[in-house]
Parts: sequence; C-alpha cells; structure tokens
Amino acid sequence: MSTIILRGNIIHTPTRERFVCIPGGYLVTVDNEIRGVYEELPEAYRSLPVLDYGDQLIIPGLCDMHVHAPQFVYRGLGLDLQLMDWLDRYAFPTEARFADPAYARIYYEAFADAMAKNGTTRAVVFGTLHAEATEILMEELEKKRIAAYVGKINMDTLSPDYLCETPKQSLADTERWILKTKEAYRLVKPAITPRFIPTCSSEVLEGLGRLRETYDLPVHSHLSEDLGEMQIVRERYPEYDNDSDVYDRFGLFTDHTVMAHFIYPTEHELDLVARRGVTIAHCPQSNGNVAAGIPPIRRMLDKGIKVGLGSDVAGGYSLCMLRAMSEAVYLSKLQWLKSEKQDAALSIPEAFYLGTKGGGQFFGKVGSFEPGYELDALVIDDGSLGVAADHLTLEERIERVMHLADDRNLTARYVAGERA
Amino acid sequence: MSTIILRGNIIHTPTRERFVCIPGGYLVTVDNEIRGVYEELPEAYRSLPVLDYGDQLIIPGLCDMHVHAPQFVYRGLGLDLQLMDWLDRYAFPTEARFADPAYARIYYEAFADAMAKNGTTRAVVFGTLHAEATEILMEELEKKRIAAYVGKINMDTLSPDYLCETPKQSLADTERWILKTKEAYRLVKPAITPRFIPTCSSEVLEGLGRLRETYDLPVHSHLSEDLGEMQIVRERYPEYDNDSDVYDRFGLFTDHTVMAHFIYPTEHELDLVARRGVTIAHCPQSNGNVAAGIPPIRRMLDKGIKVGLGSDVAGGYSLCMLRAMSEAVYLSKLQWLKSEKQDAALSIPEAFYLGTKGGGQFFGKVGSFEPGYELDALVIDDGSLGVAADHLTLEERIERVMHLADDRNLTARYVAGERA
Repeated sequence: MSTIILRGNIIHTPTRERFVCIPGGYLVTVDNEIRGVYEELPEAYRSLPVLDYGDQLIIPGLCDMHVHAPQFVYRGLGLDLQLMDWLDRYAFPTEARFADPAYARIYYEAFADAMAKNGTTRAVVFGTLHAEATEILMEELEKKRIAAYVGKINMDTLSPDYLCETPKQSLADTERWILKTKEAYRLVKPAITPRFIPTCSSEVLEGLGRLRETYDLPVHSHLSEDLGEMQIVRERYPEYDNDSDVYDRFGLFTDHTVMAHFIYPTEHELDLVARRGVTIAHCPQSNGNVAAGIPPIRRMLDKGIKVGLGSDVAGGYSLCMLRAMSEAVYLSKLQWLKSEKQDAALSIPEAFYLGTKGGGQFFGKVGSFEPGYELDALVIDDGSLGVAADHLTLEERIERVMHLADDRNLTARYVAGERA
Repeated sequence: MSTIILRGNIIHTPTRERFVCIPGGYLVTVDNEIRGVYEELPEAYRSLPVLDYGDQLIIPGLCDMHVHAPQFVYRGLGLDLQLMDWLDRYAFPTEARFADPAYARIYYEAFADAMAKNGTTRAVVFGTLHAEATEILMEELEKKRIAAYVGKINMDTLSPDYLCETPKQSLADTERWILKTKEAYRLVKPAITPRFIPTCSSEVLEGLGRLRETYDLPVHSHLSEDLGEMQIVRERYPEYDNDSDVYDRFGLFTDHTVMAHFIYPTEHELDLVARRGVTIAHCPQSNGNVAAGIPPIRRMLDKGIKVGLGSDVAGGYSLCMLRAMSEAVYLSKLQWLKSEKQDAALSIPEAFYLGTKGGGQFFGKVGSFEPGYELDALVIDDGSLGVAADHLTLEERIERVMHLADDRNLTARYVAGERA
C-alpha cells in the first residue's frame, strides 16, 4: 500500500457555500484514496513519513473543462477580430498544420508543459481532426501527468476545404482512434468531440452518438456560444429552436457530457441540461474576448446544473485556472448589473468550487479532499503576494492566490495519487 | 550633452488608429528629448555607442493614471464584498495605519518597487490623508524612478472617525505639504486630490480650488463611479444633476485634471469634460471588481475626450498596465454587446495608445517616440510567449505581449531620459 501524508494549510470546498480550512492539517491518502483531513495525525499513521509544506497552502488540483490544444500556438493573437475572421486567420490555418506529426509533437509538448506549470491536474481537451496528432497530444499529456479526456474532433461541413473530412472518413477515423487509445494510457482517455453543430452533418452526429454508446465515452463540445452559430443550427434543424435538443436527439447529452459556454439558454434548455446531468464549462476570459456575451451562471447553479471552469485557449489566452476563477467572479458582477441585481454575483468560495470540485466531478471523485476522493493537489507558496500571511485568514490567503498567483507560486503538484 | 541610442524592434502609437513599427530601428534621444526613430542610424550619431537590444521590443513607458498606493497592502482581498463593506473592512482601516511613518515606509517601498517591476514609468497616485506618509510615498517613487503626481488626500465628512480631518486642518495640512514637496523631487510632484465629492465638504472643495490656482497644480479624483456615490452628490448639490458640474464649480475641472471612471456620464458631462480638457482614467479591472459598471469609452473618444488607463489598485488587484490594456479591450467588447453594437470595441492599437500616449499627455510630451518627446521606454523580451517570433509581425508580437507578458518579460526601463 502506498500512503502519502501531506502537511500544510489545507483548503477545499466540499460544498460551494464556503471554504473548509484546516491550518497546519494533515491530508492522508492511501493508494490514491483520500482517508481524511486531520488537525492531528491519527495514531495509525504516526510511523510514516510526512511531507511537511510548512506555512504553504494545499488545495485540490485545478480542472480545465474546455481547452483547444492546437490553438495554444497562437494564444493572445487577433483578439480584436470578429469570431469568423479570427477562425479564418488563426484557428483554421494553425489547426491544419497539425497534419504534420513533427509539428504536433513540438507544440503539444509545449502545451502540456505549460498546463502542468499552471497547476492544472485535469482537463477536457480539443485536438484537431487529425487522429495521429491527437494521439501525440494524448502521449504528451500523459507524460506531463495531466489526467485528461481528449478529442480527435469532427468537422465535415461548413469547414475550410483544407480542414474538412467526409462523413465516412470522419467516423471511421474516429472509431479507429478510439480503439487504439481507449486503453493506451493511465491518465488520458478519448472523448467524442464534434467541433460544434455547424461543422458536423447529421450523419456524423448520428454516427458519433452510436460510437458514444458502443464505447461508453464522454462527450465534449460547444453549446449556444454565439448568436450567429445558433442561427445556423436553427436553420438546419427547424424542428428545434435551440442547440440542446439537437445534441440530445443524437444521444450526445448524457451525464458524462461537458458543453462549453451556454450563453443564451432558453428555459427549456436549462431544464434539459439539468435533467440529463450535462456539465457546463464556463470560460469567462473567452466570453469577453470573442464578444460572445455573459452566461447566466447563477441561474444554472440555481437549477442544479453542474458547472466547471475552462480556459478555452485560444478564445482565452491564459491557461491559468486560478485566473479563470477570479475572472468568473468579475464577469458575474457584470451579470449582476445586467440582470438588474437579480443574478447574485459568484462568491469567492463558489468560484473556487467551480474550478476544483465543479469540474472535478466529471472525472469521478475528484476536486475535493473528502474521504474516498482521489489525490489531486497543489502546494502554493503565497509569500510573494503582499502583506505578511500571519495577518490574514486562510480564506483571505486563498482569495489573494486566486487573483494574484501565477506559476511561480506553485511548488508541488499531485495527480491521481502521485507527485507529478 | 547626453545622447542615448537604443536599437531594437520599435513600436509606438503616435495616433490611436495604428501601430508604427520599425523593425531593427534606432531610437535617438539627446538630453531627454527624442530626436527621432530611424531605420538606419544617421551619420551624425555613428561615432556614439548603441544599446543594442537585438530582437527585443522597445515600446513607450506605461502610464498608470489612477492608483491608491496604501491599498496595495491588501490588493486581491474582499473582492466579493459590496463597495461600502469593502471600504469599511479593508480600505479605511488599512489607510489609517499610514499615520505611522514606519508602516508607510515598508509598504510604500514595496508599492514603488512592484510598480517599477511592472514597467510603469508615470503614475497619478492617491496617498492617504497623512501628509508625512505621503512625503514618504513621494520619496519612494522618486527612488524607484516613477515619475508621478501624488496626492495627500482630503476627507472631512462622511468618513470614519478614525480617518477624518476638520476642514481647516485638511486645507492647512495640504498647503504645508504642497510647499514642502513641490520642488523637492525631480520626478515626483504634488497633485490636489480630494478623495471624492462625498467625503469632502464644500469648504474643503472650495479651498482646494484656491490651492490649485495659487500653486498651479494638477487635480486627481473620482468621477461618476457608482450610482450610490452619485446619489449622495445629487442630494448635497440639488442645483446640479451630475458630479462634473460640482467639480467645475470649485475650479477643479481643468486641462490638468484626471478623473477616474466616469461610468455614468450624461451628455452634458461628456461635453463639459471635453471642453475643459479633463483626462479620464479608465480602470477596466476595477470597474468589474467593484461591480461599478462599464464606462462608454468609445463615446468619450468620439467626443475627443482624453483617456488613459489606470490600475485602480486595490479596486484592481494588478499593477500591470499591459494587463489593463488587454482588459480594456475585453470590457469594450461587453460594452459593444450592451450598446447593441453601437459602441465599437477598442482595437489593439487603441488600447495600447490609451496605456501610453493617452495617459502620457497628462505629463507633457510623454508616451510616444515622436521627435520632442521625453524618453520613457521599456524593453521587452517576448521569447517565452509562444510560437517563435519570426513567424509573427511586430503588430502581432505587441498584441501578444499585452495579453500574456508579465514582469519576467521586461528587461529594461527608461524614465525621463535615464535608465531606471
């Protein structure tokens, strides 16, 4: 049996209402199953070595629920363009280069490395339509110990000629890739990943629904991000007035589906997403960057919808999920104003919950330090962030970390029960 | 004569419409007066040493047009509180501690140091009501070579008992402090700084108007930030329906006045601010953090109003003015949506202009590399920011710097003609 005992200022959010803080506490894990958090180390463990992180903070690992790995190459570029111009100038030409495995190796290694440095322990990741490059992405994530669901994406219509599949090829490539990768890695698994409804024919969506069922896979895509995108969906499926019913019809709306954005939900869609147990990946940096709008996160939470956070690189430019928490609070305040103070802003513990347990639940018992959970953890040295820590509560220190910390403050990362 | 010749990839915005980029260019300054930017070094300078920064970027220094120095202590804390709760819990108690000069020395040194590391070369800074601590702030900024207008602030009403002056004391302390500091430093000068209208009696505002005129000083305060604040002003001055007329009546609205925020301007106020030549400090991070709202920056620019950027620490938590540029673009996209696509979003060069020349004009010929301007410059190594620079234009590289760079990317800083 492998036992890990971490000591430090332990902070987590078993519920989104408040932080649970254990100053100088002990976090005990046996074979990647957390036994508990203790103020005093129980007798049974006293003969074992303790990894003592002193006055540093120990928090659950960060979960990035929506990120485009190939777009990492050109993050931070073209952010004053309109969405379609930006896709044509940056996204599509860059993605096309991933036909070359050597190119993919270089940039996917850099991507996985940056993600690890930023403290992400779990991620749901878009690749490109290229199966070989997507395998390389999976290898690089496994090497850097990012536990991830990764997608070879599908796009067979409304896509540029140089980045488009036939429906048959799309489905055949996807199935071959699933068979090759579904048991190939310890931490990384395939996910069904239609780019979004506009770039997928009904034939492909139907085929993906079958593959999902056959291989019992998670699903990852975009939902109601942009009024232009939604208009295309309305015209193609006039029998529905929303994106959600289309995904649902093809069997892609399950309790293991994660959908990015959901900015313009109808009441019917909120109910359907809640009922099916779909997780929403909220990407606050991207929502403003691509001028998409502000999603009603409070209304989703009130409906009982599961919500996590995503970087959405390169609609977002930063991979830092602490920053996503901070920006989720920021954007929720603008939503509070926009809703004439009806939609309460997110609290600091709520944003922390979204970036840890809110996303983590998609991976099983992940994102919290409750008994039975996997050990995903970060150790954070906040000594550089301002007034001396001994004047602050742990709740204040973790808030300051959310707003101000960067990769320099992360001193250790544990993923799925191992030091990463 | 002191001549400085910098070589590198030179980028600036003489106008806000576009970047002017000179790859591998020469920036020549004689006695803090820029002579020009050249593709080839003119014959007259060829015998002089060149500071060659290779493939790095050389840009004008960054101007922070609104920042509260004492609030640096607790930046990043309490950002899910309402504004008045936040002032009571963090701002006022912290500011009160600056009665102690030893406390002021520690935190103002840290503040000036962080500002310098973030590449700020010019700033307009709130102190506290304590004249002695404000002198310490001025000394520390001078030491770190931040060229700044600094204010001992005034607050004699609607303030906590432990942080409040009498009108007489407020004006007498201010005048003594002005006389002591106005010629004391090379880079740092005093500014008339009423906290905002609610905390200043008419007697104090009137006295400050006289001091402004007597000593020909700049003015710095807050304008139309928050509906609650504006309501207090309406009740106190029922003869006006806005903040601007109140400042104007007391002689505090001049072409050397900078006002933070201006989120809810009336058409009359926009005209008055334009006519008086008042500069607006736009603080995008703070606007969301304190749930104040989104100012109509495009409408201000269309009116010909001068606009710069501010960090507004600790309403904002970051001193990085590159980040303020990025966030100004972000917020302007939400304004574009809010205005039903009437207010065009800020372009990347516009945001860059606001953070350099837009604020710089408040200090004279500052913020651009045109002939006759002072030499404020930063050297930036963007090698760590993603795809190799040789695949990108200089316009793309500077945009990426805006979104992604931090203090690690800054390799040199020049302020008012000297290496800082």
